[in-house]
Amino acid sequence: MRAAIYRGPGEITVEEVPRPEIESPTDAVVRVTHTAVCGSDLWFYRGQSDREEGSRVGHEPMGIVEEVGDDVRSVEPGDRVFAPFVISCGRCEFCRKGLHTSCVNGDSWGGDNGGGQGEYVRATEADGTLVRVPDRHANDEDTLEAILPLTDVMGTGHHAAVSAGVSEGDTCIVVGDGAVGLCGVLAARRLGAERIIAMGHHEDRLELAESFGATETIAARGQEAVDAADDLTNGGANHVLECVGAASAMETAIDVCRPGGTVGYVGVPHGVDDSGLDVFSLFGDNIALNGGVAPVRAYADDLLNDVLQGTLDPSPIFTKTVDLDGVPEGYRAMDEREAIKVLVKL
Amino acid sequence: MRAAIYRGPGEITVEEVPRPEIESPTDAVVRVTHTAVCGSDLWFYRGQSDREEGSRVGHEPMGIVEEVGDDVRSVEPGDRVFAPFVISCGRCEFCRKGLHTSCVNGDSWGGDNGGGQGEYVRATEADGTLVRVPDRHANDEDTLEAILPLTDVMGTGHHAAVSAGVSEGDTCIVVGDGAVGLCGVLAARRLGAERIIAMGHHEDRLELAESFGATETIAARGQEAVDAADDLTNGGANHVLECVGAASAMETAIDVCRPGGTVGYVGVPHGVDDSGLDVFSLFGDNIALNGGVAPVRAYADDLLNDVLQGTLDPSPIFTKTVDLDGVPEGYRAMDEREAIKVLVKL
Repeated sequence: MRAAIYRGPGEITVEEVPRPEIESPTDAVVRVTHTAVCGSDLWFYRGQSDREEGSRVGHEPMGIVEEVGDDVRSVEPGDRVFAPFVISCGRCEFCRKGLHTSCVNGDSWGGDNGGGQGEYVRATEADGTLVRVPDRHANDEDTLEAILPLTDVMGTGHHAAVSAGVSEGDTCIVVGDGAVGLCGVLAARRLGAERIIAMGHHEDRLELAESFGATETIAARGQEAVDAADDLTNGGANHVLECVGAASAMETAIDVCRPGGTVGYVGVPHGVDDSGLDVFSLFGDNIALNGGVAPVRAYADDLLNDVLQGTLDPSPIFTKTVDLDGVPEGYRAMDEREAIKVLVKL
Repeated sequence: MRAAIYRGPGEITVEEVPRPEIESPTDAVVRVTHTAVCGSDLWFYRGQSDREEGSRVGHEPMGIVEEVGDDVRSVEPGDRVFAPFVISCGRCEFCRKGLHTSCVNGDSWGGDNGGGQGEYVRATEADGTLVRVPDRHANDEDTLEAILPLTDVMGTGHHAAVSAGVSEGDTCIVVGDGAVGLCGVLAARRLGAERIIAMGHHEDRLELAESFGATETIAARGQEAVDAADDLTNGGANHVLECVGAASAMETAIDVCRPGGTVGYVGVPHGVDDSGLDVFSLFGDNIALNGGVAPVRAYADDLLNDVLQGTLDPSPIFTKTVDLDGVPEGYRAMDEREAIKVLVKL
């Protein structure tokens, strides 16, 4: 089978690799039909984080179950399924409390189980990991494209909003206009926020944020952005979604948070280790820092229901579509910010 | 009047200074009868944080109201009162939500309003700041010594427990066996924790922790302490109280926190800015960081009720008593860890 492979910074190739097979009774092999390129893939693509050269890439698979192990009960061959960006068992203490990213039987995509950006993947812990799309929706292309972000960015934006404590009537600020930030806007609206202030650098993305429910937007950086947010909120919002991960974005998120408020953060921390998180700002203002790597499996069923009901549609974040051979071009387009997020259709 | 003055690292003197007078209709002048030396005073005493030389010190005053401004309604001359370590108005948005440390009309002790360690202080915003001790208890020395920690360390330990989300039946770990950590143990017990694991370096303080309600103790540092906590909790507690503020204590607190748990931190951050807070540990395990400078005024009424009922008594943290002339000796004794906390009786 063919799959996208990381060959070093700036270099993604599509190569012939062994097809994953059932190895354990809890495995399922899925033929990937849809997947995506993630903003977090850009860290290694840009050489800003380590990744083994030759490793398979991608972690947002959706497809058709091809084969299942003897113990798999929740899916069967022919089912349309999608999988979160980490594998989880669904049985352990952490899965049961909705923290599937800390699953004691968990695993990542990208080893010999296959990355998401390839023709097949092997889902170990298939029962805990795979989410089945009901048959009546299983072949509706628009619906599938709206579901695909539940593998990662929609669940991640939702985790930011939940972690920031957003609920009905709240005012919140979303820092970041990438795919996660835009999904954070959708999530905040879904949770009933009354004012959603989207903050970013790109006019086109902020327009999309408005169509997703942002009531105000701020196109600025650093102190200028903080001042604008302070003006709009009279001193900061109680709920701030940090959806970037860069140290500067975290600093901005803390700066625009009202004393006693909460920053919900979900961006993979990047550069924060160099400059150090400003604990003094958090301390003096009693700002809570909540969140982390998003347990998107915990949210998948609820969000799927909303997509199927037609009340949630994150698919406009896909501004470019490629096939498997186009994956390298997809990375380039996201790296150069030509595309918000790239859909890969196999 | 006479008051303790900071004259540079390691040097506290008791000198004649102007007596504070009523300057505004919301002021009250209080004759101090009881006060204390705080662990946070040691940062400047050790030259590890800046403080203006010649400034008055202390921030935990209790005494008798001497005189009030025309607008003061809640206290009158002759009342026994105590004051939290910051001045707050009780009227603003932040006071109303229980975040008195972010009061928009707030102030600190130690200017010409007097530090706590002197014969008189002027409480600006007297109505918001001063807490009245009911007359029937106002001259009972044992009760007063049990109330005095409500000016700072008892409220701070309670804030750690509240911020860590401690409630009935919980298992929690208290990092630090200083006065705040010990009060954190009392607070956790008061909130109904079932297991309270106290972690520190001093056998005598850990014995006091046990008498305060700790069910287990760990006398170790660094990885040894983390390993011991992991053994006792099978991988960490969901509620961790960080009651020191040093970077190493924060690191330990995060390390002993269970994935998805909460670190409630109240120690003035110290050294954390150099090494940077390890956001990756927080991120990967979805550990929430909650707390900050404690709004002890918010807790004063509830905690006072418990002291007066006889169900809360933090006074054993005072292991040494001095008079005003003994304040320099009190600093020395705390600096050299001879005393957990020094009571000053004027």
